[in-house]
Amino acid sequence: MTEVGFVGLGVMGSRMVKRLLDAGHKVTGYNRTKTKAEWLIKAGMKWADSPAAAARAGEITLSMVTNTEALKAVTGGPEGILAGLSRGKIYMDMSTVSPAVSRELAAQVSAKGAKMLDAPVSGSVSTLEEGKLSIMAAGEREAFEQARPILEAIGPKVTYVGKNGLAVTMKIATNLSLAVQMLAFSEGVLLAEKSGIARETAVEVLLNSVIASPMVKYRGPFVLEMPEEAWFDVNMMQKDLLLALELGRQLDVPLPTTAVTNEMLTTARGMGLAKKDFAILFQVLAQMSGLKL
Amino acid sequence: MTEVGFVGLGVMGSRMVKRLLDAGHKVTGYNRTKTKAEWLIKAGMKWADSPAAAARAGEITLSMVTNTEALKAVTGGPEGILAGLSRGKIYMDMSTVSPAVSRELAAQVSAKGAKMLDAPVSGSVSTLEEGKLSIMAAGEREAFEQARPILEAIGPKVTYVGKNGLAVTMKIATNLSLAVQMLAFSEGVLLAEKSGIARETAVEVLLNSVIASPMVKYRGPFVLEMPEEAWFDVNMMQKDLLLALELGRQLDVPLPTTAVTNEMLTTARGMGLAKKDFAILFQVLAQMSGLKL
Amino acid sequence: MTEVGFVGLGVMGSRMVKRLLDAGHKVTGYNRTKTKAEWLIKAGMKWADSPAAAARAGEITLSMVTNTEALKAVTGGPEGILAGLSRGKIYMDMSTVSPAVSRELAAQVSAKGAKMLDAPVSGSVSTLEEGKLSIMAAGEREAFEQARPILEAIGPKVTYVGKNGLAVTMKIATNLSLAVQMLAFSEGVLLAEKSGIARETAVEVLLNSVIASPMVKYRGPFVLEMPEEAWFDVNMMQKDLLLALELGRQLDVPLPTTAVTNEMLTTARGMGLAKKDFAILFQVLAQMSGLKL
Amino acid sequence: MTEVGFVGLGVMGSRMVKRLLDAGHKVTGYNRTKTKAEWLIKAGMKWADSPAAAARAGEITLSMVTNTEALKAVTGGPEGILAGLSRGKIYMDMSTVSPAVSRELAAQVSAKGAKMLDAPVSGSVSTLEEGKLSIMAAGEREAFEQARPILEAIGPKVTYVGKNGLAVTMKIATNLSLAVQMLAFSEGVLLAEKSGIARETAVEVLLNSVIASPMVKYRGPFVLEMPEEAWFDVNMMQKDLLLALELGRQLDVPLPTTAVTNEMLTTARGMGLAKKDFAILFQVLAQMSGLKL
Repeated sequence: MTEVGFVGLGVMGSRMVKRLLDAGHKVTGYNRTKTKAEWLIKAGMKWADSPAAAARAGEITLSMVTNTEALKAVTGGPEGILAGLSRGKIYMDMSTVSPAVSRELAAQVSAKGAKMLDAPVSGSVSTLEEGKLSIMAAGEREAFEQARPILEAIGPKVTYVGKNGLAVTMKIATNLSLAVQMLAFSEGVLLAEKSGIARETAVEVLLNSVIASPMVKYRGPFVLEMPEEAWFDVNMMQKDLLLALELGRQLDVPLPTTAVTNEMLTTARGMGLAKKDFAILFQVLAQMSGLKL
Repeated sequence: MTEVGFVGLGVMGSRMVKRLLDAGHKVTGYNRTKTKAEWLIKAGMKWADSPAAAARAGEITLSMVTNTEALKAVTGGPEGILAGLSRGKIYMDMSTVSPAVSRELAAQVSAKGAKMLDAPVSGSVSTLEEGKLSIMAAGEREAFEQARPILEAIGPKVTYVGKNGLAVTMKIATNLSLAVQMLAFSEGVLLAEKSGIARETAVEVLLNSVIASPMVKYRGPFVLEMPEEAWFDVNMMQKDLLLALELGRQLDVPLPTTAVTNEMLTTARGMGLAKKDFAILFQVLAQMSGLKL
Repeated sequence: MTEVGFVGLGVMGSRMVKRLLDAGHKVTGYNRTKTKAEWLIKAGMKWADSPAAAARAGEITLSMVTNTEALKAVTGGPEGILAGLSRGKIYMDMSTVSPAVSRELAAQVSAKGAKMLDAPVSGSVSTLEEGKLSIMAAGEREAFEQARPILEAIGPKVTYVGKNGLAVTMKIATNLSLAVQMLAFSEGVLLAEKSGIARETAVEVLLNSVIASPMVKYRGPFVLEMPEEAWFDVNMMQKDLLLALELGRQLDVPLPTTAVTNEMLTTARGMGLAKKDFAILFQVLAQMSGLKL
Repeated sequence: MTEVGFVGLGVMGSRMVKRLLDAGHKVTGYNRTKTKAEWLIKAGMKWADSPAAAARAGEITLSMVTNTEALKAVTGGPEGILAGLSRGKIYMDMSTVSPAVSRELAAQVSAKGAKMLDAPVSGSVSTLEEGKLSIMAAGEREAFEQARPILEAIGPKVTYVGKNGLAVTMKIATNLSLAVQMLAFSEGVLLAEKSGIARETAVEVLLNSVIASPMVKYRGPFVLEMPEEAWFDVNMMQKDLLLALELGRQLDVPLPTTAVTNEMLTTARGMGLAKKDFAILFQVLAQMSGLKL
């Protein structure tokens, strides 16, 4: 049983807290909007008035926010996580930010006498709820071993990948395939459909084939009916591809499928679809091929 | 129990015959090289001296060959499958050829009073042996229903997709994702590796992630060690992408990831790697990024 | 002064005949539709009732048709050019067809005792009329030297590139840049325009810059106002890119910009713009970027 | 006759100063390395000990540096250009930096009571020396009219494109075509060469064709022999493409040819060719196609 601080109780974060509570840990949580946390408070979570307060309460503090800007907002300043950290504590950020930003933050955490891990997750709300989430973690090995039980309470597949920043690197390296696989899947469905195969049949066959990754299984049905709310929208997906492309330039790795898919996400935005789940790539391609939707 | 003719006893074809024999069907088989068929003859298969002879023996005759040229060789001429077909018989081709070629052949079969189905499979030797092969079938519905037990003896997931030519269309629409997923996977592994993550770790993480399709699971380990013999080589993979690109042009479907991946397969050939499994895309990209292999 | 046969009196062909007449040569011409040839007959051209008749009349016979099918139509059969050729004659095809098709035809011509040259032109109607057309020629050197005065009467820049088929190869190698340059130009104009620069200003600056090839100068203004009639439509442009891509595959040459531009031409067709001048690529991209046209 | 300050006497900058001196203007110039300026001092240029001193001496001050970092170095701090500006002066930056950076700088200049123009040039050393350089300028119209004689002394084609930042935008929109045209040209040369046409012949034909922009004419011969010193190296070219891609994302403009060419520049860097003139794209593609160089 560990005292856990948690900052960022959004769709993913709140469900992580629930799993931690269910596993018997004590959680003190903070969120920008308190109302969204009511159900967790009822379930036993203690409320913190600031990120700093959450970090003060936790032996291990976790954060789960949308992007670099949000991360800076919850870590910096007199009310930020850094202000609440002290010698011996562990801080794990589970957001997807650039490896460089994550490493800078790790240095600041280290200056406080605490240890940081970057520990982004791969998977969606449903993978999390099914207890099948994969987690990559990076930072000092000792800190990782200390934090491991907390990570395993969130998801069973935990992999240590190396020093600070490498877990977000691994996340970025994974996520580029999400968008590329979705676009290739869409190319296949459109070829089938314009040949005269019913779209439902094409999707069914592809979901039973060797190309059916969990991602394809989740999002394949979206080409039949888009979800009202995006799981992961075009803007968020493109943020990850841009991190990959930036890394590719720094490391001299050509990324042909990532680059071409990124331009299609830009097309999605040009067509006014930035807030749709990135499975909308199917409709972007369909429009380019003249299909009436 | 059905009398089955079978033409083309290669890696896939021979194992299909074995499954048919195991399921209690009588099989008369033909192959260009008889020696490769000895083990099947021992297992109970009858030998046919020509494709025509196999077709004469079977109520339902199947063929499984490499490409359009091979298909023309086994179907045409006085010794070919067409010569052995007659009213009431069913002929199923399981090869991947262009939908147009398949439809032409169906017309010739029809002129003999027989019915043709195109029934390509999705999956590899191991999927077949595990009894998990997916099969798409197209042609007249009635002929399909008659042939269904034979198909189900080969693989349990059988989907009827529509009229002649549409099953090979569906196969092509599936296969483009094989190459694209492999290339995107390679981009991710290289980003991770050049960042300082061990290649083994990167592969392990990706194989546990939401992008791990069966194809990625089979071929991911190939970036650690290429198989001595190609499962599906660069030339064969490119043949399928070219069929997809041809179809895309005919149907006005832009295929951005397929087109860019196809150029990388051309690069593989330029680098002298045409006969390697298409997982060699990883090494092509690695060389482009200056990684010593 | 030479007796010249000419087959194919379309937009380009007819103006070539005019230049030959103006240079003092005798021309016997054939066209599918005679009415289009009336003005040339008035200008001194003799009419031939068939391609064969034109070839019989000419010491040197030229053809200028749209594609491979049209070329087969005017060369084959009892009324075709081949039927009119005999020992000592020269036949030059100025169309853009695949190098392989051109070489096959050269072999048939050779079997008649005549010599064939492939001599496609680079440039448009206006380059032709200004007497600035570039011509590449291939085939036996001796035949080329004999035909040179005829070629120079059509355009002043004549380059001998090698054996049969290599001039069409060179043409294809040139033409891929037409489409790619147009698409890159469009990317630049759209970046400027969406930044707040008037489209007219952007075009003016680009036409005065180091990227302003003759092609860019001709077609740049089309992004301000498309011509009513296409100079070279999307279908024709894509035909040439497909010849390039086919060649690239045969020779293991990756063609990254050609491949990506080809998919945009497919998008143009998907959007119903197949018959527009290929400068329509600007509007395709503009639509993808959400610009109202 | 105007008092001109000039900061950055590199390959381009020094030759601009020479033209200004030749046109009768008084120039006070600064460079990080004084030795490179000796010839200009002999030609009549006054030496300034700091960017601030150059700006104090000039009614109009120009800067020409490599990138954003260099620009910040010469403009900021107590010795920087900003420190030397005062009411009524004009400052023109001719470097290629991001439009956003240029606009920020303009605001700082404005706070000093001076006016800024961004005025990047399109063309190379030889275009400059031939007096054919194109210049785009942006900022307040009145300041532009005041500065126009200075700009016209440098290059005759001066175009006003709009408010601050739009000239660098226009430059970026132009430069993407440099790299794309070079890559498309290389694709054509390789197709020709692998078909059996001598590389020299292929280049000659292309340089006489409608695709021969001034850029193609300058760099086409580089595929026959690379210059010892880069005119514009892979790193610099990629810097401009990245500015274009960044702009494309902000403005929702898909940039298919730019994106694919950018990955090839990354490949050039992966192959260790970052310091070569970007015409090295030919050799990158040649290696990918297996050509021995």
